[in-house]
Amino acid sequence: MAFSRNTWKLILSYDGGDFHGWQVQPGLRTVQGLLSEAIRKVTGEEVLPQGSGRTDAGVHALGQVATFDLEAGIPQQNLLRALNRALPTSVRVTQAEVMPQDFHARHSACGKTYEYRIFVRRDAGTRHERICSPLLARYVWDCRWPLDIAPMQQAATAVIGEMDFSSFAANDPDVSVRQGATPPTMVRTISASEWRREGDLLIYRVNGNGFLHHMVRNLVGTFIEMGCGRMSASQMPEILAARNRSISGPTAPARGLFLVEVHY
Amino acid sequence: MAFSRNTWKLILSYDGGDFHGWQVQPGLRTVQGLLSEAIRKVTGEEVLPQGSGRTDAGVHALGQVATFDLEAGIPQQNLLRALNRALPTSVRVTQAEVMPQDFHARHSACGKTYEYRIFVRRDAGTRHERICSPLLARYVWDCRWPLDIAPMQQAATAVIGEMDFSSFAANDPDVSVRQGATPPTMVRTISASEWRREGDLLIYRVNGNGFLHHMVRNLVGTFIEMGCGRMSASQMPEILAARNRSISGPTAPARGLFLVEVHY
Repeated sequence: MAFSRNTWKLILSYDGGDFHGWQVQPGLRTVQGLLSEAIRKVTGEEVLPQGSGRTDAGVHALGQVATFDLEAGIPQQNLLRALNRALPTSVRVTQAEVMPQDFHARHSACGKTYEYRIFVRRDAGTRHERICSPLLARYVWDCRWPLDIAPMQQAATAVIGEMDFSSFAANDPDVSVRQGATPPTMVRTISASEWRREGDLLIYRVNGNGFLHHMVRNLVGTFIEMGCGRMSASQMPEILAARNRSISGPTAPARGLFLVEVHY
Repeated sequence: MAFSRNTWKLILSYDGGDFHGWQVQPGLRTVQGLLSEAIRKVTGEEVLPQGSGRTDAGVHALGQVATFDLEAGIPQQNLLRALNRALPTSVRVTQAEVMPQDFHARHSACGKTYEYRIFVRRDAGTRHERICSPLLARYVWDCRWPLDIAPMQQAATAVIGEMDFSSFAANDPDVSVRQGATPPTMVRTISASEWRREGDLLIYRVNGNGFLHHMVRNLVGTFIEMGCGRMSASQMPEILAARNRSISGPTAPARGLFLVEVHY
């Protein structure tokens, strides 16, 4: 084992508020950069781990996946522990395993699950305003408008299926490149899209075969417009059909978004 | 009310990881500095709110208390909401009320409650190591040694009562000034001191009439030495009697400490 290259798969969780996103950037603290440094410290090998996709600054991960090849033969638990010793506590390796050589965190992925968390300050029709604990504030959108979950759920259901999500894609030039495999298409398939209430939180869970840049945050920003009555949930089909980012809602803040799981 | 000065009492909670501690310092982001700025934005008045005591960088607060005088007459709920709008989400005002003129956050306090939280990676006698979530890591000491709570609790009980805590005071020159009312004495009275287990956490709760600088963190650092067997709980009386900081344990990290409540 020590003389052939091994393809490693790591599952990572991190507090996105501590980093300038996933992707390595000169002079900035990024998850990919710190992980690469930790691997070098532990094994002496220079590798750039490939993620299942980028996460933006502030976006958290419970199950980001990264792959890289190592020459060193090292038992799984030892690599996991040594990396966690070398990494700051705001990034943890929760699983490490050797995979077939052709496994790739991004190319092999067949889907992802995200969650978006909103702190509900005030229920519709009441005046009492809850205060979002500072210990929770890094991990939620502390939303100032009273929200009605019914239209949000109606709109969430409307995006289930295979459709063109141009209206929810960031207006940035390299969006198609960022999303990998099939650059020109904005078509994605959403298999689950649901809001639920847990205590003072509204939580959106979405599962799909891929996501455009900012897609989840733009969907959530649009659902919120519907939840507070500035837009109607019945507009969702026409927003999708327009394929125009300017008619959907604003981008929800990064801090509420979690990459929960990557599916293979 | 608009023409007499009001003495305000605020209860604050904050994520200490976001600040260089409580006390205002030129060029640094501190809770006192941001609160002063928020009050100026809201009322136009320049005041320096007085806290119940300093908290160091990284130390969290669930119930810090601050007082200041304002000329502006403003309803309690309006001041609370306006300050929360002006403050970053990592500081929240959870209560605002007008007090008698002679009320002072520090001088009027008769006691404080602190908690210290430790993440237990591994139980004594087992090999399985738990991984501390990055979403929890800002708020606990992710302690690498297996800990036995029994000697920790025995040592915690030994500090209940009125005694000289010199062995647990920071070796800094202005410690007595920082602690206010009775500068030269290192005597404090601890009325409750207890460890409990909650899931993967060990939580220390201590209540006393006052605390020397770093006292809770130095106590916890010493309890940990006992919990992992490097010191014996039976040494506690002699450590106290020595009145010598160099024979107690190391200072526990700031991130695990919470100022829970100030008593009046």
